[in-house]
Amino acid sequence: MAEISDLNSATALLGWDQQTYMPPGGVIARGNQIGTLSSLAHSKFVSQDVGVLLEDLKPYAESLDPDSDDFCLIEVTSRDYDKQKKVPSDFVAEFSRVTVVAHSAWEEARKNDDFSHFQPHLEKIVEMRRQYADFFAPYEHVYDPLLDDFEPGMKTAEVQEIFSELRPKQVELIKAIGEKPEVDDSFLHQSFEDQKQWDFGEQAITKYGYDWDRGRQDKATHPFTTNFGVGDVRITTRVDPNFLNTALFGTLHEAGHAIYEQGVSPDLERTPLGGGASLAIHESQSRMYENLLGRAYDFWVYFYPKLQEIFSTQLGNVDLDTFYKGINKVAPSLIRVEADEATYNLHIMLRLELEIALMEGKLMVADLPAAWNERMDDYLGVVPSNDAEGVLQDVHWSSGVLGYFPTYSLGNLVSNQLWEKINLDIPSLSSQIQGGDFSELLAWLHENVHRHGSKFKPQELVTRIVGSRIAPEPYLKYLNEKFGSIYQL
Amino acid sequence: MAEISDLNSATALLGWDQQTYMPPGGVIARGNQIGTLSSLAHSKFVSQDVGVLLEDLKPYAESLDPDSDDFCLIEVTSRDYDKQKKVPSDFVAEFSRVTVVAHSAWEEARKNDDFSHFQPHLEKIVEMRRQYADFFAPYEHVYDPLLDDFEPGMKTAEVQEIFSELRPKQVELIKAIGEKPEVDDSFLHQSFEDQKQWDFGEQAITKYGYDWDRGRQDKATHPFTTNFGVGDVRITTRVDPNFLNTALFGTLHEAGHAIYEQGVSPDLERTPLGGGASLAIHESQSRMYENLLGRAYDFWVYFYPKLQEIFSTQLGNVDLDTFYKGINKVAPSLIRVEADEATYNLHIMLRLELEIALMEGKLMVADLPAAWNERMDDYLGVVPSNDAEGVLQDVHWSSGVLGYFPTYSLGNLVSNQLWEKINLDIPSLSSQIQGGDFSELLAWLHENVHRHGSKFKPQELVTRIVGSRIAPEPYLKYLNEKFGSIYQL
Repeated sequence: MAEISDLNSATALLGWDQQTYMPPGGVIARGNQIGTLSSLAHSKFVSQDVGVLLEDLKPYAESLDPDSDDFCLIEVTSRDYDKQKKVPSDFVAEFSRVTVVAHSAWEEARKNDDFSHFQPHLEKIVEMRRQYADFFAPYEHVYDPLLDDFEPGMKTAEVQEIFSELRPKQVELIKAIGEKPEVDDSFLHQSFEDQKQWDFGEQAITKYGYDWDRGRQDKATHPFTTNFGVGDVRITTRVDPNFLNTALFGTLHEAGHAIYEQGVSPDLERTPLGGGASLAIHESQSRMYENLLGRAYDFWVYFYPKLQEIFSTQLGNVDLDTFYKGINKVAPSLIRVEADEATYNLHIMLRLELEIALMEGKLMVADLPAAWNERMDDYLGVVPSNDAEGVLQDVHWSSGVLGYFPTYSLGNLVSNQLWEKINLDIPSLSSQIQGGDFSELLAWLHENVHRHGSKFKPQELVTRIVGSRIAPEPYLKYLNEKFGSIYQL
Repeated sequence: MAEISDLNSATALLGWDQQTYMPPGGVIARGNQIGTLSSLAHSKFVSQDVGVLLEDLKPYAESLDPDSDDFCLIEVTSRDYDKQKKVPSDFVAEFSRVTVVAHSAWEEARKNDDFSHFQPHLEKIVEMRRQYADFFAPYEHVYDPLLDDFEPGMKTAEVQEIFSELRPKQVELIKAIGEKPEVDDSFLHQSFEDQKQWDFGEQAITKYGYDWDRGRQDKATHPFTTNFGVGDVRITTRVDPNFLNTALFGTLHEAGHAIYEQGVSPDLERTPLGGGASLAIHESQSRMYENLLGRAYDFWVYFYPKLQEIFSTQLGNVDLDTFYKGINKVAPSLIRVEADEATYNLHIMLRLELEIALMEGKLMVADLPAAWNERMDDYLGVVPSNDAEGVLQDVHWSSGVLGYFPTYSLGNLVSNQLWEKINLDIPSLSSQIQGGDFSELLAWLHENVHRHGSKFKPQELVTRIVGSRIAPEPYLKYLNEKFGSIYQL
């Protein structure tokens, strides 16, 4: 497991480098290198030796405390092993080839706003995702095995139930907001010097507790967080010289991911437990640091005077209230990654519903663009004028990734469930934040979330902490209170 | 072989990152990652499968043109395989452990100027290097197997013969120079803005033909060149804000290494032939770009006006002749890496002689500091006042590396052998350089040296190009002419 972890870390570094510093000439060789290392790690993991060792460990595991590292290690490794063993190597290789071609076709299709160019590739991908699901038959729902890759143990039915409660209420909120006067955020769209934006972001996440001895920040076109052990967790960001939000909230978001990985117990290093519990739990941390802190009034009580000092020309005459409302402006839009807090989940639900319909065979790929536009109109009241800013906007499907989108929304929900509990446990949190002190919050997250790595399944972890499973109420309450106040609903 | 090459490239990236961007917290995990990947590459290479495949290929090889890629691939791979198979894995692992500890001990010893702290570790290393040599018995000389690791096919006797011709003449030259008035190089020791130094270096190597689409330059404490295929060859440099030479000649030197690797035929990529022929051949390229170009009058006819424009305050009143003499100042000194062209080889000869004496058992490690100081006095007329700036100055021995030092000097010799031939083949080279045109030179090097990768052993390659083996005369001629003119000998 340690060797496999080392191979995965090396692969992660190859990826980090590709997105930060690699010269263009390196791309073909880099593909080969990542391919070789991934395939070595995979074949080492599914080897018969590992199966025998795990079998030998089962009697030992029975004697262990189910909360112990050893028990979880055997449990999680066995689960991954059983899962990966079910997928033939030939299929993995073939799917990899299909998605490489599909990704190029998608880039071309998006550039030319021509869905038909991508369509046959996506048809192949959907067909192969169904084959993939069938390796895990019987299942409750054909989408379950896909979801399970990102949220271990989570079922489609659960997600659907959560989202069906969420959707009408979010749609209602957005309609109510739409009837109110628009919030002014023009001051965010000015010229802001790159380096100053960069420095302010670093100053903020230093306060958050991001450990620079075990990390660094670099520039990347598509920001991400990656790590090579708990001692080296790196973030990336993108700076828009004419829009303050891009780097600012990007950095706060990635810092949430990174602080999580920096907080995983070193005892779990070089094991399958040495990383975040799931994508949703990860997103709960990044969303908390981006939104529940970074878009909160308390946060800016402390940071706004500093920001104003740095950008005195641009923000000197913008008061805290105006700034706070500006960074929380709600406006239905076409592009998911640019969506605000109130509309974001609707972008996700739309995608989830379409993915499920594709997997169930109830929707043909050919009909996808029309279905997309129809739902955009229903949920957000806006319709893309072309497929490039509609169904072709995200990279996920072209990479063969289905089952991933819902984790973004689940993360939003979890962040608010945790937030309610945190505020009960730390009654003075609000004033701590106003004083720029995030240390008690970090200690809480470390104790309750970070240190466990992936010892527990996401639903188990949430239940351990808040006493119930993932649920939409805290998030809805938060949205209604926050935007009710901003928009005087 | 392709998979092994991918593993080696990934290992090289882990190393590059460690020396450029890795945060301090990453160091332990990085050691594990590099260890795992190196060991996987090694065990893949010495596997029985590879042996069987090579055996099967031998009849096929017999039918091939000895200059063909396929023939050389089988030949070189078999040679490496036979060599690596002779060394037991246990020994490799044990030696690795010994050198990790020895390296720390050396750092400590150098810091405290306490050779006795390093002595037992070096004794162990010498003992294990002898054991290593014995895996290849019978040999002509116990130092041969060590040398062969860096210069395939080269024998100790050859190197000794070359050096015994070189040494008295270099000593004589330095004595003659020592009787002349000192050259003024004080203008090189001024404050030079970092970024401007950086930019000038990049401008120069762009003219050399370094391909930025397939490379990049970053900062590192100990500059080096590394690559991950011919499409991604990176250099690093160090900038001293108070001394012009450090970054300038460092960048030109590394560019020589990098242009070599960028010029290896893409057909050899992901094979054991896809890199430079040997360390000496590599050094012939870096020394050529650093010294035969970068410290030549012709070069500065073109570049000096540009440098003066950039650093007008510092160099505006220094004329070209003065500058040229300044960058070529000869002064015996204690530290190898700071040595000038005329004295450099003597630092190497001293090390080679001591290494051989240690391996032969004629010199005890305990007597090494005294032997060092005695030779420094003999060859250079200077004696270190302590071991930190004497016998403890280089990292090599603490890393278990013996047999490496002579390659630096051999590279100097080869660079001049090539240079004589190049000037015969390109009669207008001098005026091309004065015009800042390095393209015909690069084409020549590409055709005769670069593209072949490691298809040929160093002596074979040199013989193919200049018609004779590695020899000291062209280098001595060069030194005598150049410094005879500068110092009016």
